[in-house]
Amino acid sequence: MEKTMDKIVQVAKARGFVYPGSEIYGGLANTWDYGNLGVELKNNVKRAWWQKFIQENPYNVGVDCAILMNPQTWVASGHLGGFSDPLMDCKECHERFRADKLIEDFAGANGIELDGSVDGWSNEKMVNFIEEHNVPCPSCGKHNFTDIRQFNLMFKTFQGVTEDAKNTVYLRPETAQGIFVNFKNVQRTSRKKIPFGIGQIGKSFRNEITPGNFTFRTREFEQMELEFFCEPGTDMEWFQYWRAFCRDWLLSLGIKEDEMRLRDHSAEELCFYSKGTTDIEFLFPFGWGELWGIADRTDYDLTQHQNVSGQDLTYFDDAKGEKYIPYVIEPSLGADRVVLAFLCSAYDEEELEGGDVRTVFHFHPAIAPIKVGVLPLSKKLNEGAEKVFAQLSKKYNCEFDDRGTIGKRYRRQDEIGTPFCVTYDFDSEEDGAVTVRDRDTMKQERIKIADLDAYFAEKFTF
Amino acid sequence: MEKTMDKIVQVAKARGFVYPGSEIYGGLANTWDYGNLGVELKNNVKRAWWQKFIQENPYNVGVDCAILMNPQTWVASGHLGGFSDPLMDCKECHERFRADKLIEDFAGANGIELDGSVDGWSNEKMVNFIEEHNVPCPSCGKHNFTDIRQFNLMFKTFQGVTEDAKNTVYLRPETAQGIFVNFKNVQRTSRKKIPFGIGQIGKSFRNEITPGNFTFRTREFEQMELEFFCEPGTDMEWFQYWRAFCRDWLLSLGIKEDEMRLRDHSAEELCFYSKGTTDIEFLFPFGWGELWGIADRTDYDLTQHQNVSGQDLTYFDDAKGEKYIPYVIEPSLGADRVVLAFLCSAYDEEELEGGDVRTVFHFHPAIAPIKVGVLPLSKKLNEGAEKVFAQLSKKYNCEFDDRGTIGKRYRRQDEIGTPFCVTYDFDSEEDGAVTVRDRDTMKQERIKIADLDAYFAEKFTF
Repeated sequence: MEKTMDKIVQVAKARGFVYPGSEIYGGLANTWDYGNLGVELKNNVKRAWWQKFIQENPYNVGVDCAILMNPQTWVASGHLGGFSDPLMDCKECHERFRADKLIEDFAGANGIELDGSVDGWSNEKMVNFIEEHNVPCPSCGKHNFTDIRQFNLMFKTFQGVTEDAKNTVYLRPETAQGIFVNFKNVQRTSRKKIPFGIGQIGKSFRNEITPGNFTFRTREFEQMELEFFCEPGTDMEWFQYWRAFCRDWLLSLGIKEDEMRLRDHSAEELCFYSKGTTDIEFLFPFGWGELWGIADRTDYDLTQHQNVSGQDLTYFDDAKGEKYIPYVIEPSLGADRVVLAFLCSAYDEEELEGGDVRTVFHFHPAIAPIKVGVLPLSKKLNEGAEKVFAQLSKKYNCEFDDRGTIGKRYRRQDEIGTPFCVTYDFDSEEDGAVTVRDRDTMKQERIKIADLDAYFAEKFTF
Repeated sequence: MEKTMDKIVQVAKARGFVYPGSEIYGGLANTWDYGNLGVELKNNVKRAWWQKFIQENPYNVGVDCAILMNPQTWVASGHLGGFSDPLMDCKECHERFRADKLIEDFAGANGIELDGSVDGWSNEKMVNFIEEHNVPCPSCGKHNFTDIRQFNLMFKTFQGVTEDAKNTVYLRPETAQGIFVNFKNVQRTSRKKIPFGIGQIGKSFRNEITPGNFTFRTREFEQMELEFFCEPGTDMEWFQYWRAFCRDWLLSLGIKEDEMRLRDHSAEELCFYSKGTTDIEFLFPFGWGELWGIADRTDYDLTQHQNVSGQDLTYFDDAKGEKYIPYVIEPSLGADRVVLAFLCSAYDEEELEGGDVRTVFHFHPAIAPIKVGVLPLSKKLNEGAEKVFAQLSKKYNCEFDDRGTIGKRYRRQDEIGTPFCVTYDFDSEEDGAVTVRDRDTMKQERIKIADLDAYFAEKFTF
């Protein structure tokens, strides 16, 4: 079976995972809506992150900060000054391009070895390359470009009545800065001592010139970020700790070793303030794509905010009797990307004995959108089956299905990745038991209704 | 004890529920960040809504739609045409006011009976009132206003490189429209038949001229909306059903009868398309404020979208063999408002025997930010207590506290509304049991560590 993006997009839409945004109006460039199953999958993934990174973790607490922040935040973070794409227009056909993408695509197509990642090139170096190689416009084929101009990726809006500079605010391009500006507040109210971390899940916005690959790169997206504060000198240890922790989290939820790789940034690829960065990448149908960036950001962020705000952002270490600005390890995960990775990883088409093919999502039970399908063998049994549904749905999301043959209903639950089906049959009325069918093994066993809670509790633990 | 907003704001900040947004930069007009406890409280409230409205409810499913939508959506919904405030400027001091607020405040201060809600007045009627009564500028006292101009409340931004009309998009002013445009998609993928509902939790944005009252009215806010689709003619029945369901949800989470009222809109207050609307209001320290609007919106929304999009949004009722546009009952709840209501309702200062005062949040256990405080009696016992923390924190959010006397630690957990404390003492090492202390009764009982899961599971059920 070939897993293509086209197939994933089509199955995601057909089953209720992801629809094109504003579809009845012809959509809106690369926006996507999570459907009745997608929202459950995404919520389960977010909960699984929160559970392991915040709830069970003795070091960390959470926050939920506003999307709209004081613009000084983006002065300090560097987003107002430097968060931009290098754009150039074709003077002939007026198409607009990212200069770095133009160079990468041209070099790729012509087998030209580039001098490091184009990301790090100056505008001058990019212009020189384009001139030297006479790079043509991918749209009209001519070679006649404007100069490069930097285009800031933050979405701009106006708060208040007048649309002027005084009222300009930005949609945050990352959740991390809400954590940094609240470092002192959270430290005070949580009474945490270093080392400790602050995590956040929330929407961010980047006015990407070239969004694409389904939900992989979108202008509106959700992040799950942790900023972990530690004593300078202990940072590389914690960097390794979180690097392993993130990898293990993905493995524990069913991502396979051979779909995943850890790519350490080379010295020239590193941001000037970072001591180390590792990307955890997933092998999507379109190639390797970054899910998670884990970076040792040193004391860069807190120092920047201290300088711009004039507030004291040092931490007093009472064990050592000294003040310092903590170092930060940042594991930053894209929620939409990791959901897409789980969709791609779990999807399968299996040939069964007899030659039938079943489509199935092998989701880990902890993230499956529907945990249990409750199926009365006959509509005459709906009353008893509805009681089972009511009992189980107090604990997790279930689906009641009384339409079609049992075989068809099993297939339908397979198609949406439901790990277990409970069939309520005529014997159930007598013996108070039901048949539990496992999605992956397709084996069945008879379980007392009174024992179902305990039976499933163990299955859904992660 | 007097509960004032000032006190609630101050306690919320001191304890880690809500901080002023971007505080180190002097804030950003009425934005707020949820702190380490606030995020847990808010997440619990959102989960409690999802649990009762989606997970356990046999009729409903969820979605999670993009904040950025095709602008045609706002043509159909009426937000581009009519979603605006009437503003006027003082020509003397250049302050800007909402004309309706100006009139209401003036009438209130001068004991003038108004002709219905000013909300429903035409601009002409408002100007006439202001002229007739010679209403002065609240800022400089003079009477010299500009004409009224309508100010649209949607936040505007630009997607793509150029800031022109073609690239203008809006931040959604409500989550409901994402549900309407996906009505057909969700009906198809969920295979639901009417009656059924679609729920969504997410951020919305309104460029309010006068935000205020802490998190009650903010420009960026979170909604929990259900759109319930039913057969025309059954709508008033379902309206009553959801009206009672919403009230019961608040009561089941600890809101008291005398803090809450249901206010039915009068005929002249109703939107022209609505057959009935009820506001559930809560008695905040600043007065009654709307938490929940429950409205029978008839077939208005789907008809509008059908007309503007040209897509068929009818439903084929196979039991009746006919097509129709379903009626919609919409219970729409403000997440930040209901969290604020829980904060206000739960807060108390109690005089104890002996004259001591304890501050306490009497949160319902299901929404308490921290479910169990785990307290080793002595630091020598940390190892055993940490095992209890690890066991319990797999299920819910706990806090480990080994600092200060047990009495002080109990008070600290009372202050943040933790319903139970577990004290691990020297006997625990021998008898494998701990002392469980109840926040509200302050009674203690001895429970085996092995029995804690079952003991608490029952307490946190809701």
